[in-house]
Amino acid sequence: MAVPLLNCDMGESFGNWPLGLDAEVMPYVDCANIACGFHASDPHVMRRTVALAAEHGVRIGAHPGYPDLVGFGRRSMACSAAEVEDMMLYQAGALAGICRAEGTELAYIKPHGAMYNDMAANLELLEGAMRAVRAFDPRLPLMVMSTADADSHRELAARMGITLWFETFADRAYEANGHLASRRLPGAVHHDQATIVAQAIALAKGEALTARDGTSLYLPCDTLCVHGDNPESMAAVHAIRQAFQALESV
Amino acid sequence: MAVPLLNCDMGESFGNWPLGLDAEVMPYVDCANIACGFHASDPHVMRRTVALAAEHGVRIGAHPGYPDLVGFGRRSMACSAAEVEDMMLYQAGALAGICRAEGTELAYIKPHGAMYNDMAANLELLEGAMRAVRAFDPRLPLMVMSTADADSHRELAARMGITLWFETFADRAYEANGHLASRRLPGAVHHDQATIVAQAIALAKGEALTARDGTSLYLPCDTLCVHGDNPESMAAVHAIRQAFQALESV
Amino acid sequence: MAVPLLNCDMGESFGNWPLGLDAEVMPYVDCANIACGFHASDPHVMRRTVALAAEHGVRIGAHPGYPDLVGFGRRSMACSAAEVEDMMLYQAGALAGICRAEGTELAYIKPHGAMYNDMAANLELLEGAMRAVRAFDPRLPLMVMSTADADSHRELAARMGITLWFETFADRAYEANGHLASRRLPGAVHHDQATIVAQAIALAKGEALTARDGTSLYLPCDTLCVHGDNPESMAAVHAIRQAFQALESV
Amino acid sequence: MAVPLLNCDMGESFGNWPLGLDAEVMPYVDCANIACGFHASDPHVMRRTVALAAEHGVRIGAHPGYPDLVGFGRRSMACSAAEVEDMMLYQAGALAGICRAEGTELAYIKPHGAMYNDMAANLELLEGAMRAVRAFDPRLPLMVMSTADADSHRELAARMGITLWFETFADRAYEANGHLASRRLPGAVHHDQATIVAQAIALAKGEALTARDGTSLYLPCDTLCVHGDNPESMAAVHAIRQAFQALESV
Repeated sequence: MAVPLLNCDMGESFGNWPLGLDAEVMPYVDCANIACGFHASDPHVMRRTVALAAEHGVRIGAHPGYPDLVGFGRRSMACSAAEVEDMMLYQAGALAGICRAEGTELAYIKPHGAMYNDMAANLELLEGAMRAVRAFDPRLPLMVMSTADADSHRELAARMGITLWFETFADRAYEANGHLASRRLPGAVHHDQATIVAQAIALAKGEALTARDGTSLYLPCDTLCVHGDNPESMAAVHAIRQAFQALESV
Repeated sequence: MAVPLLNCDMGESFGNWPLGLDAEVMPYVDCANIACGFHASDPHVMRRTVALAAEHGVRIGAHPGYPDLVGFGRRSMACSAAEVEDMMLYQAGALAGICRAEGTELAYIKPHGAMYNDMAANLELLEGAMRAVRAFDPRLPLMVMSTADADSHRELAARMGITLWFETFADRAYEANGHLASRRLPGAVHHDQATIVAQAIALAKGEALTARDGTSLYLPCDTLCVHGDNPESMAAVHAIRQAFQALESV
Repeated sequence: MAVPLLNCDMGESFGNWPLGLDAEVMPYVDCANIACGFHASDPHVMRRTVALAAEHGVRIGAHPGYPDLVGFGRRSMACSAAEVEDMMLYQAGALAGICRAEGTELAYIKPHGAMYNDMAANLELLEGAMRAVRAFDPRLPLMVMSTADADSHRELAARMGITLWFETFADRAYEANGHLASRRLPGAVHHDQATIVAQAIALAKGEALTARDGTSLYLPCDTLCVHGDNPESMAAVHAIRQAFQALESV
Repeated sequence: MAVPLLNCDMGESFGNWPLGLDAEVMPYVDCANIACGFHASDPHVMRRTVALAAEHGVRIGAHPGYPDLVGFGRRSMACSAAEVEDMMLYQAGALAGICRAEGTELAYIKPHGAMYNDMAANLELLEGAMRAVRAFDPRLPLMVMSTADADSHRELAARMGITLWFETFADRAYEANGHLASRRLPGAVHHDQATIVAQAIALAKGEALTARDGTSLYLPCDTLCVHGDNPESMAAVHAIRQAFQALESV
């Protein structure tokens, strides 16, 4: 059976500050979401990361964020849909320029952090993002959070002529509406590897997850987010990859 | 006879701060050097400026600068050639992304301010800039300062497979080496319109200028820099355009 | 009778971008809210503005904002109370350092833009701001939006040992809860000078305003915000100052 | 005998990016040079680092840098003396504001990176820095690079009414003019702990070092720079501290 693509945030170093185990995790993922300088990364880091992804044949995604380096793009900002549209074009273009220099190209776009979350909750912002994708290159899929509201997102995407890739998380608990449980809640983040792998397999098979309120939650899953932050998350990536290889051979 | 292209810095507003008479000057120039967010401009200003240029059929040039908003990219920074190369790729890509959204494309690249000046004085930096152009799109001309050292720049460009556009100034006094006289010197900037137009015509015809030390200075001139900062500079643009139309009809 | 202090945002230029008629408006106001570099201003602009205020005997207020130059601090950001507290300390300290160099000192603190608005709506953020003031110098008044909720703000301030200065606006329509009507609504901003002066006088006398829904609204008013953006707002400042001088002589 | 103060750069984390072993090295140093947000650090990091220094009774120094986060303040920028003066006032004030909130205060100022180096080579910039110190608080020593040119720096400081603290390095090779050998040269950085300790002792005792060209170099040494970057540099700190304790007991 076909399994979801593994995607991972990359290129999150900035100037003198290293971050993430990009070189270690790159061989195990399908998609590298590369930061574009607004919340992390810089032209040199972007170039190095694009070259690394190209070397491993990993799809390169622009990972645009709010202009908030000190907050790592994790603080919601009251940007208009037009502002989001233009800052996505800018950042996607910047990374595309780096890709050209390395003889490769963008394969998709995944908004980052607070921008990604705001978009999952606000159709106006989501439409702004879709306008950016359509204007930049309508063949590029837009990676969005897989929620219980997927149908409204699908309809909007169809109307805009955009392809969506629904993304899920194996290491996070979900609310009944398909949004991620807040990190402040106990049990919001799974640390047990068996739990993470089990959730990854369920998502890959299209089976229901159990939301925090006990209800069943079916989430479309084109791609699964993994992390290369530390040895613990690297171990989870290896385990998920192994489980997916077993599924693929079925 | 063919006359030099008129180019003008554009898109230098930033967020809440307007700057420049872009809408007024756009109809009179051939080339718009559009700032890319490092020394001026932002995604929204870039988009508005690209749309304005496209509407008037004006060639769009990426105008990358050092990352120094507060100094407007006018302070030399000790960046390596590799840093210059990567920041040019980033900025050119960002503007190219905006251009795609507006159905147009980049026509050339002109480094800004201190980066432009440093490049005229330092072949290593110039080569870094040429690497960026070659990697991004070798068909795009690189606009550089026309100096008495043009041959060494031409040789380097030929070796790199890059086209140069030599730029001159009608409103500035020159040193014997073809560098602009420092603004701190008396007489460094021409304010008299007749003087400006006369220098523009001499440059267009390939006639010698008189450098500050009295020697004759021949400068290659593919393009002439004009300014849309204020009514005075706008008047000079009109006068130069009129003079060039007379030359063209010869 | 005593009249409210006139306060005005100042020092909003940034690098090469001028903004505001600071030199023109300074002689007519009591309090200069000076931007501190996060949403506008830079060290040089701050120094020039502090010197100008000192020269005119105008009280100097730190005007800290969210770290959002391109959005001019007008976009709400999901900062924690602790983040607001620390960024206020940083910015107030920076302006206080400039004041020391000019032989003067801070007289109060007024948060800017979205930070100011968020604080009016969120007691947790307001308490963060009060912690900053208390830790920096509890003798400095904190300027806050005068709303129908003034009592809860007064209670919090009393508990924190902080003095509040309630600020009102003569050129803006109010909602019944004492918040400013959104600029997007028709009639939200008064442009007629007679209307502006009448509202200023009513606020100074403690008389009721009429909110957008027709109800009466009493707002405490220690200080009134005026603007030095353009000739129109300058004319309003002159008219309000004249009206207040008449009130004072009563 | 009295020994030089050990100083260490601190507070160099930025937002989501940690850097340096501040908590580990703090107990072993006398002076913490705390970054002020232009080349590293942010309001929260500054506050945490000030609290840590205060807890250990370590003197707090403002460590202002050029406005170049991505370059970590290590790239020389062509700033004027007046620009350096104002940006030092801003940054020193910001850190002083944080200090007030933590019940402590600034003890000295040490410019960072390229600004520090530029100042050692350019008396005009050094005088700008001295104007900042004099205007902010003339009792605060200014830490400067100890070079063979110390007398001209001493004369300028005396004229400006400023105290200088001359700083030396135990882990770096010196040129004959007392400047640090470029990191690009072989042998520029000492990694052998015995060599580092021996150079520290020689500097403490006022004995000559041997410059790269073989000549003897006497350097005034009020303070010695140490590093808390990694376990290797931490070991050097411990060894120097132990050696200095032995000297002190003599």
